Amino acid sequence: MDTSNLSMQLNFIKEIDKLKYIERKTKLFHSERRENDAEHSWHLAMMTLVLAEHSDKPVNVLKVLKMVLIHDIVEIDAGDTFIYDTLKSHTNTQQELQAAKRIFGLLPEKQAKEFIAIWEEFEEGLTDEAKFARSMDRFEPLLQNVSNSGGTWKEFEVDYQKVYDKKKAIKNGSSSIWAYAESLLEDSVEKGILTKRPDLPK
Amino acid sequence: MDTSNLSMQLNFIKEIDKLKYIERKTKLFHSERRENDAEHSWHLAMMTLVLAEHSDKPVNVLKVLKMVLIHDIVEIDAGDTFIYDTLKSHTNTQQELQAAKRIFGLLPEKQAKEFIAIWEEFEEGLTDEAKFARSMDRFEPLLQNVSNSGGTWKEFEVDYQKVYDKKKAIKNGSSSIWAYAESLLEDSVEKGILTKRPDLPK
Repeated sequence: MDTSNLSMQLNFIKEIDKLKYIERKTKLFHSERRENDAEHSWHLAMMTLVLAEHSDKPVNVLKVLKMVLIHDIVEIDAGDTFIYDTLKSHTNTQQELQAAKRIFGLLPEKQAKEFIAIWEEFEEGLTDEAKFARSMDRFEPLLQNVSNSGGTWKEFEVDYQKVYDKKKAIKNGSSSIWAYAESLLEDSVEKGILTKRPDLPK
Repeated sequence: MDTSNLSMQLNFIKEIDKLKYIERKTKLFHSERRENDAEHSWHLAMMTLVLAEHSDKPVNVLKVLKMVLIHDIVEIDAGDTFIYDTLKSHTNTQQELQAAKRIFGLLPEKQAKEFIAIWEEFEEGLTDEAKFARSMDRFEPLLQNVSNSGGTWKEFEVDYQKVYDKKKAIKNGSSSIWAYAESLLEDSVEKGILTKRPDLPK
């Protein structure tokens, strides 16, 4: 047994417990309680298992699972960034990269490199696996907000166009899930839980 | 697109959100807060990714991940059973089987059958994947209790022998992790956070 490997791995396993304290803005289904990152990551993993057949391209499910399980671990250091926050950038900030290096760096070197590479692949969103993983990440809060009569859209006054612009990334992973998501957005406008901004006067 | 499949799958995805409300007895690392089943399942998935190399037998990691991600979903109906509860049985109770059929039964038939079979394989604990998955399930709360100065062992006055008897299942999955776990148990006795019952007088 390589006990030094095990010891490093256990340090990592203890460290990532902190993900359970990172609170997201989005609330659980039909709920007033905000979701934490560990719960969110578990739910995305379950969605991946169940919905992978809807990916436009065949995907390596194990790789997508790795992505969704680890994608938010950097938030232990960098904190959660609300997707409609207009001040903070969401992609590959320097702070997140430093966090990835510190936290995944607790692992034995080979594993650390693998996890950092998977996290970067997810962030870049270019491969079929990353596209599908990112579509899951965008789809879950949409379902939650619909179940919560608008949820964070209402709470933070986010209008239809802003939501649409963020959610259309779902299309990169699955055109059928995107078709469903689009219909949910239209329904939400009809129900008055998502607002289309009127045209500005000329 | 098979929209009926997607619709059934989304009902399942919404239903399993309830796992986030199922509270375990064990508390988070260095914490007073009890863990919920969704957080626990995520942590076991991460442990599987990181520790799979310590399995005595080569395992299909994707299958182990499926097991640990879904193993507690039946508790949405059946509730969490504390491992040291002496009244309730833990294996394959009728109530859990009914729960598996109801909850996984929300999925399209082929997926429902696959998930029920994976859950049953985990419960039976006979295959290499089930043995490793079960060793992760026993190892996580041990690490948590050690971090919490005895945690549930202290809280519910569980002695060394009872803990040892439950934890030795770790050995079925990984002799190296079991060696480490055994040393943690001995350390815990030395530190006074786990009690060896004195021999009863003859």
